[in-house]
Amino acid sequence: MPRCNNRAPAQMRPVRIIRHYVRHAEGSVLIEYGETRVICTASVIEKVPPFLKGAGQGWLTAEYGMLPRSTGERMQREAAKGKQSGRTMEIQRLIGRALRSILDLEKLGERTIQMDCDVIQADGGTRTASITGAFVALYDAIDYLRAERMISQNPIRDHVAAVSVGILKGQPLLDLDYLEDSGCDTDLNVVMTGSLGLVEVQGTAEKVVFSRQELDVMLNMAQQGLQELFDVQRKALETVA
Amino acid sequence: MPRCNNRAPAQMRPVRIIRHYVRHAEGSVLIEYGETRVICTASVIEKVPPFLKGAGQGWLTAEYGMLPRSTGERMQREAAKGKQSGRTMEIQRLIGRALRSILDLEKLGERTIQMDCDVIQADGGTRTASITGAFVALYDAIDYLRAERMISQNPIRDHVAAVSVGILKGQPLLDLDYLEDSGCDTDLNVVMTGSLGLVEVQGTAEKVVFSRQELDVMLNMAQQGLQELFDVQRKALETVA
Amino acid sequence: MPRCNNRAPAQMRPVRIIRHYVRHAEGSVLIEYGETRVICTASVIEKVPPFLKGAGQGWLTAEYGMLPRSTGERMQREAAKGKQSGRTMEIQRLIGRALRSILDLEKLGERTIQMDCDVIQADGGTRTASITGAFVALYDAIDYLRAERMISQNPIRDHVAAVSVGILKGQPLLDLDYLEDSGCDTDLNVVMTGSLGLVEVQGTAEKVVFSRQELDVMLNMAQQGLQELFDVQRKALETVA
Amino acid sequence: MPRCNNRAPAQMRPVRIIRHYVRHAEGSVLIEYGETRVICTASVIEKVPPFLKGAGQGWLTAEYGMLPRSTGERMQREAAKGKQSGRTMEIQRLIGRALRSILDLEKLGERTIQMDCDVIQADGGTRTASITGAFVALYDAIDYLRAERMISQNPIRDHVAAVSVGILKGQPLLDLDYLEDSGCDTDLNVVMTGSLGLVEVQGTAEKVVFSRQELDVMLNMAQQGLQELFDVQRKALETVA
Amino acid sequence: MPRCNNRAPAQMRPVRIIRHYVRHAEGSVLIEYGETRVICTASVIEKVPPFLKGAGQGWLTAEYGMLPRSTGERMQREAAKGKQSGRTMEIQRLIGRALRSILDLEKLGERTIQMDCDVIQADGGTRTASITGAFVALYDAIDYLRAERMISQNPIRDHVAAVSVGILKGQPLLDLDYLEDSGCDTDLNVVMTGSLGLVEVQGTAEKVVFSRQELDVMLNMAQQGLQELFDVQRKALETVA
Amino acid sequence: MPRCNNRAPAQMRPVRIIRHYVRHAEGSVLIEYGETRVICTASVIEKVPPFLKGAGQGWLTAEYGMLPRSTGERMQREAAKGKQSGRTMEIQRLIGRALRSILDLEKLGERTIQMDCDVIQADGGTRTASITGAFVALYDAIDYLRAERMISQNPIRDHVAAVSVGILKGQPLLDLDYLEDSGCDTDLNVVMTGSLGLVEVQGTAEKVVFSRQELDVMLNMAQQGLQELFDVQRKALETVA
Repeated sequence: MPRCNNRAPAQMRPVRIIRHYVRHAEGSVLIEYGETRVICTASVIEKVPPFLKGAGQGWLTAEYGMLPRSTGERMQREAAKGKQSGRTMEIQRLIGRALRSILDLEKLGERTIQMDCDVIQADGGTRTASITGAFVALYDAIDYLRAERMISQNPIRDHVAAVSVGILKGQPLLDLDYLEDSGCDTDLNVVMTGSLGLVEVQGTAEKVVFSRQELDVMLNMAQQGLQELFDVQRKALETVA
Repeated sequence: MPRCNNRAPAQMRPVRIIRHYVRHAEGSVLIEYGETRVICTASVIEKVPPFLKGAGQGWLTAEYGMLPRSTGERMQREAAKGKQSGRTMEIQRLIGRALRSILDLEKLGERTIQMDCDVIQADGGTRTASITGAFVALYDAIDYLRAERMISQNPIRDHVAAVSVGILKGQPLLDLDYLEDSGCDTDLNVVMTGSLGLVEVQGTAEKVVFSRQELDVMLNMAQQGLQELFDVQRKALETVA
Repeated sequence: MPRCNNRAPAQMRPVRIIRHYVRHAEGSVLIEYGETRVICTASVIEKVPPFLKGAGQGWLTAEYGMLPRSTGERMQREAAKGKQSGRTMEIQRLIGRALRSILDLEKLGERTIQMDCDVIQADGGTRTASITGAFVALYDAIDYLRAERMISQNPIRDHVAAVSVGILKGQPLLDLDYLEDSGCDTDLNVVMTGSLGLVEVQGTAEKVVFSRQELDVMLNMAQQGLQELFDVQRKALETVA
Repeated sequence: MPRCNNRAPAQMRPVRIIRHYVRHAEGSVLIEYGETRVICTASVIEKVPPFLKGAGQGWLTAEYGMLPRSTGERMQREAAKGKQSGRTMEIQRLIGRALRSILDLEKLGERTIQMDCDVIQADGGTRTASITGAFVALYDAIDYLRAERMISQNPIRDHVAAVSVGILKGQPLLDLDYLEDSGCDTDLNVVMTGSLGLVEVQGTAEKVVFSRQELDVMLNMAQQGLQELFDVQRKALETVA
Repeated sequence: MPRCNNRAPAQMRPVRIIRHYVRHAEGSVLIEYGETRVICTASVIEKVPPFLKGAGQGWLTAEYGMLPRSTGERMQREAAKGKQSGRTMEIQRLIGRALRSILDLEKLGERTIQMDCDVIQADGGTRTASITGAFVALYDAIDYLRAERMISQNPIRDHVAAVSVGILKGQPLLDLDYLEDSGCDTDLNVVMTGSLGLVEVQGTAEKVVFSRQELDVMLNMAQQGLQELFDVQRKALETVA
Repeated sequence: MPRCNNRAPAQMRPVRIIRHYVRHAEGSVLIEYGETRVICTASVIEKVPPFLKGAGQGWLTAEYGMLPRSTGERMQREAAKGKQSGRTMEIQRLIGRALRSILDLEKLGERTIQMDCDVIQADGGTRTASITGAFVALYDAIDYLRAERMISQNPIRDHVAAVSVGILKGQPLLDLDYLEDSGCDTDLNVVMTGSLGLVEVQGTAEKVVFSRQELDVMLNMAQQGLQELFDVQRKALETVA
C-alpha cells in the first residue's frame, strides 16, 4: 500500500512556514504539513493569570480551534455549541506544555504569551503542526519584546517541534495524514527540543497493543522527522521579516 | 484628512477573491477587502432544520466567527467563553438573510447550505466582505450540486453583495476601514442584488443623527461600490476552477 | 384586504402610555401599541461598566425579554434554556443605541441607566414600542436624579421614538401588527429623534427586494407615525405624576 | 409595631384577580396580594414529557420568573446570566406540585398544562400569590379544553391556594409583605385545598427556632387566610368572562 | 405490608457515623442511614462571600451531589450535563439553612465553612442523612479551628439533625427507605435542634392531601427519631479522634 | 531523600481492591493506591451511542470526577461551575481508551458499559488507580451479563492496569504520591495489558526534558509495578463475591 504522493515510510510531507501571516499579532505564522494548514498567533498580554500574581515570572498558555469546515464533514462550531470538546482541551493543554518547556518564564517577566492555533484545513497532524508553527510565532513575539526593549534577555532556551508516527499494518510511518491516522493500529506523538530532549511522548494503541521494540522504532523515526522540522524552523527564521 | 493609501472618498479598497480555498468544502473562498480577510465556506448538508421537515424546500443558514487575534487586541475565544456575543449573532443572522434573498429554496431541494464566515484578519467591513464572499462560495456549492446531478435547476436568482458607507466629519466615505469606522458619526451597511434591488439597509447614527438627504448620498455611494463588487464576483466566477 | 379595525394604511394603532407602572423603578411605563404591551423600567445604578471606569461619563444599556406566553404559541423561557436568542440580543442592542443617541452621557455622571423592556403581550412592533416607551421611563428616571440633586443639568437632548413600516402586496403600511408583519415583503424599522434626525434605519427584504423609491415612501410614512408618537410621549409627560 | 395600612395580624392584604389578562394564553390572570403583582398564564401543549409517553395521562409543569426591576434593587436577568437560581427552581417546583395535587391527570388526557408565573412587582408572597392565581388560570384553561370538546370530564378536583405566615418579635402575622418577611424569625408557607386538606407545609426558622405550639398557631392563621382566598377565587370565577 | 428487615413503623434504620473519613478535610464523616451512605466534609475557607465582606461575621454554605451510580438506574453526571438540577439546588439550600440555624456566625469570625455532602449510595433519606452527618463534620471543623486557636469561643449552639416521616396506605412510617418513599401519599422532612426546636418542617402531599391530625402524628414520630439521632451524634463525638 | 513510609524507589504503595462496593451497580470497586481512594462503577446501559446504531457492536465510555474535598485545598465542584475541566476530560478519555483496548466490542453486543471513576481521596495516581480499579468493576459487570445470559462469549481479552513513574532529582520512582508528583522533573503514565502489550505511554517533561535512556528506565520500572497490579487484580477476582 503506497503512501499518497509516493511518500517513503520515513518521509515527512512538505512542510512550509509563512511568517507574519496576520498583521495584528506580535508573532504569527501559517504552517503547512502537506494539506494540513494551521494559523498560529502569539499575543503578548501584559498580565499574568491570578495564580502567578506577584511571582516575578511570566506564563504561556495556548488555545486551539478548528474552522467548522476544515474537516471532511463539517464539524459543529464550538462557539455555537457553547463548549469545547475534550479533544480540543487536550490539544491546547499539550501545546501549552510543549512551548513552556523551552521558555524561561522568569526572563519573560510578568506577562503572558497567548498562543492561538486555528486549523484552516485538516489532514492529520494538526496538533503537531500547531506546536512546530507556534514555536516560530513565539520566536517572533519574543523578538518584538526585545525590539521594544520590554525584555533584556532571550527567554527562549531551545527549539521545540512535534511530529506523529504510527504503525499501519505492521509498517511504521512518519507524519501520518488523515487517512493513515484513521487506519493505524498505534499512534505516537512526540514533542522534542532542538537538543533532542524529549518533552512529550504520547503513544496510544488504537486497535492493537504495541511492544517496547515498536516504541523504539517509532521514536527513532520521530527523531529523524523532528531534525528536519528544526531545519525548516531555522530556515524560516533566517529570512528577514 | 486623507484616507489610507490616498483612497478617494467613493473608492473601494482593493477586493480580491480566491476560490477553492479550503479543499473539503463544496464551495470556499478567501475574500479580501483591503486588509480585511475572511474565509467563507459553503457546506452541503443533506437535511433541513426541524421547522422545514417535509416542506419540500431547502434552507440556508450562516455562522460567523473571528479568530481571536484577527483584531488589534486579542479577543476572547467565543468557544472558550461558552457563548457567542450579540454582535456575532447579529452578523450571522444578517449573512443568512442576505443569501436567502437570492436563493430559490424550493429549487434547492430538501437540504441545507451551511455558510461559515471566519475572519482571519479584521480591518473594518468584515460583515460586508463575508456576504460578498459567501455568494461566491454558495455559487460553487450549487455548481457542485448540479455537477453531481443532485439538483436540476439553478436556485440562484441573482448576485448579492454588501458594502458599508459612513459619514466622517461631514464627508461620506465608501467601504470604511477599521479606523474610519471607529471615528464615524454614521454607519450604513447596504446589501443589494445584482439587479440593484435592496435587500438590507442598516443605518446607525453612532454619534450624530443623519438626515434623509445624507441617507440618499450614502445609498448612492453604496450602489456605486456594489456595482464594482458584482464585477469582482463575476470575474472570479469566470475563471475555470 | 382591509386592516384590522379598519385602520387606514398610514394610521397608527392606538398608542397608550401609563407612567409609574412599577413602583420600585426610578422610571417605569406600560406602553401599548394596540394589542402589543410592554413594560419598560429604567433603573439607576451607581456604577459604570469596566470600560468606562474613570472616564467621567455615564452609560445606558438595555435588556429585552418576552414573557413565555406573550405570543400565540408559548415560547421557551430564555432563563430556562440558559441563553438569549440572537433576536433578543439584536433587539436589546438596538434599544440601547437608540436611547444613547439622545442622551448626553457626560451630563449623566458616572452612573448607568439600565433599561428593561419586557413584553407582556406581543402583536407586532415590540421593539419599536419598547424604544418609544423606554424614552418616557428614561425621562422619569432623569427627573428622579434631578429631584434628588444627583445631577444638575438635563442629559436628555431630544425625544426618541420608533415605528415600523412594511410593504404588503405592494401596499405600504404603517405600524404593522403581527399578522401583517408575517405577510410582508419588506419590513422597515425607523428610530428618529424629535427634531426628525434619523437614528436607525433597518430595512429588510423578507421576500421581495425593495427599490430606492419604495424606501422613500416607507420613510415618509414612518416620519408621519413618529410625529404622532412624539405627541403621545409629550402628553404622557405633561401629566403630573 | 403596627402593620402597614393598619392591617390586623390575622388580616390578608387586599387580594385582586383579573382574568383573561393576556389574550394569547388559554388561561391567564393578574393576581395582586397588596403590592405584589403576578401574571399567571396556563398554556395547553398537546404533548407530554418523555417519561409519560403512552402512559395515558397528562402533566402540569410550572415556571417562575421575576422581571429584573420587580424588586427594590434591580436583580440580574436570569436569561442574561444563563441560569436560573436555586430559589427560582425551588419555587417553580412548588407551584407545579401544588397544582398537580388537585388535578386528575388521567382526565386531562395526553397533554401538558404549562403554567408560567411572572412577577411584575414584588412585595412579599410572590410564591403564594403565584399558586392562588395559577389555580384560576388553570381553571380557565380547562374551561377552554371543555368548550373545545378536547376533554369530557373536569380534571379539577378542588380549589388550591397558598398563603404565608410568620412570627415577628413573637407576634404571628398573616400574609407577610416584604419588610415583614425580611424581619421574621420564622416563615411558613401553607398550600391547602378548598376542602382544607394540606398540600404543602414549609416552615423555616430564619433566625429563631419555633415550637410545635407556634406551628399550630401559624397553621390556624394560615387556614383562616386560605378560606378568604378560596372566596376570592370563587368570586373571580363567577364573573362571566 | 411489613417493612424491610422487619422494621417497626416508628423504628429508624441502623445509623452509623464514621469520623475523619477523608484525610484532607478539616471535618469529615461517612454517615449511613441503613443502605444510604453519604460523605460529608467541612472545609474551612478563610474568606466570606461578597455580601458579607467587612460584616464581622462568618458564613456556612453547602453543596450536595450524588455519584452517578449511587442510584438504581445511573443518573447523568451533573458536571457533564453542565448544570445542577432543581432538586440538587433545593437540597443544598436546605442543608445550608439547617446548619446555619445552630451556628453563631459572629463567633465563627470572617471565614466560611463549606459543607459538601456527596451521596455514595442512595436508598431514601439522602437529604436528612446529609444534615445529620454534616453536623458532626462541622463539629470537627470547629474543633480544628479551636485547636489552631483561630477562634476562641465555640460558635456551635446546639445539635441539629433531620429525619423523614411518611404516610404509606394510612400507616405513618419513620425514616423512609427508597421504596417506601416512592409509594408514600405524604412525605415530611423535619429538621430539629437538640433542644427540640423546629428548624424546618417540609411536608408534601405526593398523592393524597393530609390533615392537621396526620401532621401531628408525623411530627411526633419525627421527634422520636431525632432524639435517637442526637444520641448517635453524641456517641460519635465522644470517641477520641 | 527517603520516600514516605520508607518505600523503595521501585516499590508500589499498598494496593487494595474492595469489590461490590456500591450495591446498585453491575460492577463496582473501591480501589486504594496508598492514600488515594477511588470508587469505580460499571453500569450496563442497553443502548449504544448514535454513531454506533445498528453497527452490531457495543461501546465503553468513562467519566471521571473528584469530590470537592478529595484534595488538600477544596476544589470547586464541576457541577456547580457548569463545566468539566480540561484535566477531567483528558483523564476520562484516557480511561475509556484503556478499557476499550482489552474489550471485544462485538462480543459485548449492542450495549454500553458506562464506567464512573470518582475520587474520594486524592494522593497522586488517581488516573492510574482508576484504570486498574475500573478493570475489576468491568469484569464484574461482564460476569453479571453472563450470569443473566445476556452475552454468551466473554468480551474481555486481557487484563489492563496502569501506573505512574517519575524522575525526581535524577532518581526514578515508581507510583508517585502527590508530593513526589509535584516535585518531579518528568512524569510517565503507562497503561499495559496482562500480556505486557503497551496501550498508552504518556510521558511529560514537567521541568527538565528527558532522554531516550531515561524513558527506558522508567518503562522498565512501570512494567515491574504493573505485574504486581495484575496480581492484585487476580487475587481480588478469585474471591467469591
